[in-house]
Amino acid sequence: MEIKVVEKVMKVNDELAEGVRAKLSKAGVVGLNFISAPGSGKTTLIETALRRLDGSPRIGVIEGDPDTTLDAERIAACGAPVTQVNTAGGCHLEANLVDRALANFDLNQLDLLIIENVGNLVCPVSFDLGESLRVAVVSTTEGHDKPAKYPKLFRTASVVVLNKIDLLPHVNFDRAAFLDSVERLQPGVAVIEVSCTAGDGVDAWCDWLRRAAAGGRG
Amino acid sequence: MEIKVVEKVMKVNDELAEGVRAKLSKAGVVGLNFISAPGSGKTTLIETALRRLDGSPRIGVIEGDPDTTLDAERIAACGAPVTQVNTAGGCHLEANLVDRALANFDLNQLDLLIIENVGNLVCPVSFDLGESLRVAVVSTTEGHDKPAKYPKLFRTASVVVLNKIDLLPHVNFDRAAFLDSVERLQPGVAVIEVSCTAGDGVDAWCDWLRRAAAGGRG
Repeated sequence: MEIKVVEKVMKVNDELAEGVRAKLSKAGVVGLNFISAPGSGKTTLIETALRRLDGSPRIGVIEGDPDTTLDAERIAACGAPVTQVNTAGGCHLEANLVDRALANFDLNQLDLLIIENVGNLVCPVSFDLGESLRVAVVSTTEGHDKPAKYPKLFRTASVVVLNKIDLLPHVNFDRAAFLDSVERLQPGVAVIEVSCTAGDGVDAWCDWLRRAAAGGRG
Repeated sequence: MEIKVVEKVMKVNDELAEGVRAKLSKAGVVGLNFISAPGSGKTTLIETALRRLDGSPRIGVIEGDPDTTLDAERIAACGAPVTQVNTAGGCHLEANLVDRALANFDLNQLDLLIIENVGNLVCPVSFDLGESLRVAVVSTTEGHDKPAKYPKLFRTASVVVLNKIDLLPHVNFDRAAFLDSVERLQPGVAVIEVSCTAGDGVDAWCDWLRRAAAGGRG
């Protein structure tokens, strides 16, 4: 009984996700699904890119959180169109929430739609939101064991952003072990190392977003 | 239909949790449920306490993770009895998993049973594991906005550990805003500020565990 219900939920989600993907595709918008643990710096990565890219490509943002509009306020302060989706305690976004949020955007005025998922390394991985590319973010403070513990995210990511590299001197993080474990889970996947605080890697991060907007795999 | 199933799952979980609580209580063991985001340092907090407390109180550990036995290996290296529970991708522990894990411990030889939940600030909060006390861990690198975004955890925590305070000089974390937001969610809840790396607050952390083992609210 439970399994049937779960299957039905996933089937409905997949159908709605295909609808989202079709809407985005028709408008020439590339959808990105950002997945990470809470506090790994997704919002700061988006803010940094918005300020650096300065309108080219044109980026809209959907912010997912269990509560508050804190992140949407940060994005709005960068001048980008943004919609906050509160899950009321739910631990991941689903396609129906994204589909409803789409109505708040003029898709013909966008090149990229960034969907920032709820901070969680488990459940968001299982729900297709209609994105074209999936961005996994992990910060150096979380430890190099995260790919091994949460393999599904790293197997399905289009790109991995290793964030907060300015903190490497202060934390117990084995960079080589991290890169090796990502490579074993998904050979060849790109890893972009970034510090929004120090500015390292921000060029590479913005280049990836430009290529993604141009329809590449980033 | 879906709601009924969810209700049933929660009812069964609550009943099993009461069974776990009764078993622990009968053996004079205090159960602690550790909840945090991935990578906030739960395992390091446990390792640090095990080494410092050196067998008094006597502590057993259940390690919850979606995959791997990495954490259980770290705890075993400290000489404590430990069982790893892999959720096979599940985002939280449930009471039936804890109940089965109990069979691996000689409860009469323990004072405290630490249950380290899957790293996740959302779902673990809703599942009673039969613990007496709930320990919320948040690290300074995750940002001071976490209580506002994940209020249920901070409303239900018996104690809040603010971890990685050695990184405060290097991160954008407003300590006063954090403490204020925790206090607003649950007036009077204790906040212990710790750096396992620098050793700050480790005495206070171990004192809390000693008091918890003695049957106090820590």
